[in-house]
Amino acid sequence: MLENVKLEEAQELILSLVTPLPDETVPLLDALNRVIYKDIYSLSDLPSCDQSAVDGYAVSVSEKEKDHSFVVKEHLKPGEMPGYSLLPGEAAGVVTGGPLPGGTVSVVPHEVTRLAGNRLAFTGEIVPGENIKPHGEDFKAGELLARRGAVVNPGLTGALAAFGRSEVAVFRCPRVAILGLGQEVVDCSALPLPGQIRDSNGPLLAGLARKHGAQVTGVQLAGGGTLPQIKDQLERMLRQSDIVLTTGGTASGASDQALYAVRQTGAKVLFWGVRIKPGSHSGAAVYDDKLIISLSGNPAACSAGYHLLAAPVLRLLQGLNPWPRRVNAVCAGSYKKWGGPRRFVQGNLEADQKGLKVTVLPGQKSSMLRGLLNNGNALIDLPAGHPPLEEGAEVSVILLYPFKW
Amino acid sequence: MLENVKLEEAQELILSLVTPLPDETVPLLDALNRVIYKDIYSLSDLPSCDQSAVDGYAVSVSEKEKDHSFVVKEHLKPGEMPGYSLLPGEAAGVVTGGPLPGGTVSVVPHEVTRLAGNRLAFTGEIVPGENIKPHGEDFKAGELLARRGAVVNPGLTGALAAFGRSEVAVFRCPRVAILGLGQEVVDCSALPLPGQIRDSNGPLLAGLARKHGAQVTGVQLAGGGTLPQIKDQLERMLRQSDIVLTTGGTASGASDQALYAVRQTGAKVLFWGVRIKPGSHSGAAVYDDKLIISLSGNPAACSAGYHLLAAPVLRLLQGLNPWPRRVNAVCAGSYKKWGGPRRFVQGNLEADQKGLKVTVLPGQKSSMLRGLLNNGNALIDLPAGHPPLEEGAEVSVILLYPFKW
Repeated sequence: MLENVKLEEAQELILSLVTPLPDETVPLLDALNRVIYKDIYSLSDLPSCDQSAVDGYAVSVSEKEKDHSFVVKEHLKPGEMPGYSLLPGEAAGVVTGGPLPGGTVSVVPHEVTRLAGNRLAFTGEIVPGENIKPHGEDFKAGELLARRGAVVNPGLTGALAAFGRSEVAVFRCPRVAILGLGQEVVDCSALPLPGQIRDSNGPLLAGLARKHGAQVTGVQLAGGGTLPQIKDQLERMLRQSDIVLTTGGTASGASDQALYAVRQTGAKVLFWGVRIKPGSHSGAAVYDDKLIISLSGNPAACSAGYHLLAAPVLRLLQGLNPWPRRVNAVCAGSYKKWGGPRRFVQGNLEADQKGLKVTVLPGQKSSMLRGLLNNGNALIDLPAGHPPLEEGAEVSVILLYPFKW
Repeated sequence: MLENVKLEEAQELILSLVTPLPDETVPLLDALNRVIYKDIYSLSDLPSCDQSAVDGYAVSVSEKEKDHSFVVKEHLKPGEMPGYSLLPGEAAGVVTGGPLPGGTVSVVPHEVTRLAGNRLAFTGEIVPGENIKPHGEDFKAGELLARRGAVVNPGLTGALAAFGRSEVAVFRCPRVAILGLGQEVVDCSALPLPGQIRDSNGPLLAGLARKHGAQVTGVQLAGGGTLPQIKDQLERMLRQSDIVLTTGGTASGASDQALYAVRQTGAKVLFWGVRIKPGSHSGAAVYDDKLIISLSGNPAACSAGYHLLAAPVLRLLQGLNPWPRRVNAVCAGSYKKWGGPRRFVQGNLEADQKGLKVTVLPGQKSSMLRGLLNNGNALIDLPAGHPPLEEGAEVSVILLYPFKW
């Protein structure tokens, strides 16, 4: 068993075992925020024919025609197809988005026209092509609408609808199960007895996994279960999910329940311990092609371990780039600790006209929840042996959520 | 009826009629991304007692005590309460997160200790307070954990769990119904007959509303319904929702179905027409305290109208600040059109170390879906009569989604 590995080694060991999930076909309205499984092309022009951009009159003129009086051949209603092709001097009433008759040179908005019987008159110039949406103006047949790996946004939903895609193939959502270890840990709805504490990491991890597009199949606690019971519980959770996250029981010494439980299942341990702070007490194992990632019971360490080890897996499982975006930013605030292993400081990255600024959040101790409460969106990545972090220093920052805003 | 009003007047007319929705209590795990209804305070210290930060030994020393040999009184297991208070020269085995015995001066990690029988020895200095998490270190009783109007993030979920909040009061989600007008418009699953087009705006608006935290109660089309039928349909949708968005039929002339249908219900029209481009054909009415916002049938105009008129309502309904964030940014790319009414150009705002940059997206015509496909996140706000937009110009930008990344 590899112990206390480098972060990159841990990530590579984990990701080398991950392949994106298969696809599933979902109704278009349910595809929002999901990831496109297969390139989607337009199968036809959009619009499919020349259309009017306004309510008004399609008119035909010969090149020499100068007068502005036309015989109106028909008045088309919404959805109605033209019955005639226009000859010079002829016009047809048309509606916004409606198909234009053959021979249409321009469309005149109804506001500037006068109709007397079937004679249409107006003043002003006829500009060929004006108020006409030519077929294929928006999309040509054969254009790439969405690439494999693209996240479905509202605009794409609209475009897919326009092309008749009422269902879309997307990567299946990763199913994540979360198991809280530690016999002193009770559910948040329980009143803890003396010596017991409420589980905060289950809800924390469930929220993080959902933020990253996963479906949480269960948040359970091992409680006072025996090792064989915990083994059974872990195996049940593995059967119901694509990945299991455990939290707690990863320290060495009396609190090493996680490693025992993982080993009991027969899972192959990939590594145990990572040379980072917080999150050093993290490990991973593989059981029948499914990953178990074991995270610290300390909330801030659990969160850091999640972002560095589990989030890349969730991204890759659903067909996304596993790696978070990394930017350089100017540090606002300072952080006194120095030296020791590579450290990830919770931060909040903001952008303004001057550039990128990352604030050091209060509550950095690995046992604290406070730092997580502040809606931070970044981890400041400080190399091993780093000096104290000074206000104004340029730092490398990992973004925890997609870069879009 | 007010016609062709200024954007700000339209927004004020609409928002003056909106009050945030009442609260509902949801299980903690379902509260993610919802909006806190009422300030939440911590009711106790966290941790509730002094705890060990490591697996090791709690030790007691007198001020003069120099030796490093202790009598171990007990070995505490996870969840176990101390049975003794320590006197100088005494120690107790403790676990990470476990309660410390009275009299503990410091906790020594087990890795640096040697145990022989009940005699504990180690080398190195005893630093008072080391490896002790004092009660209230993370949160003191009475601290504000979450303010009314805060969006629940994973960290807050964890903190609320730690304080035993297994349920949370959040603003009810706005229920949005979407009605597509235009008898030529058919569902995206249908094969359009000649002259018919598929509905793209229903799915587009459903996606936008969901992005803004709404629950979509229905996406319907009026199709070839008669005016009384559309009136009934609109009234049914109003009963099932907090707000109805209509799309299409807002132009003047033959395509003015929306205004007729809205008036048929007896709704009071607040305004019809806004002096912006795209989105000039937008209107709003109120029916029994519920808003009907009518948007253009042109996709880009529908989207702009949604962001400028409907999104503020959805935000306010769920207790958020209705106004989008506005920033100044440098324009990347140009936009040739000039003059005319106030214009909103679809853009994508990005941030890097040099500051904020907004790209003009391809496909700006109001009839186009292309501009919406590009995952834009901003509207560039150009005043009425503006000159052509040049590369490098500083522009004012409205952010369509929350600023966090």
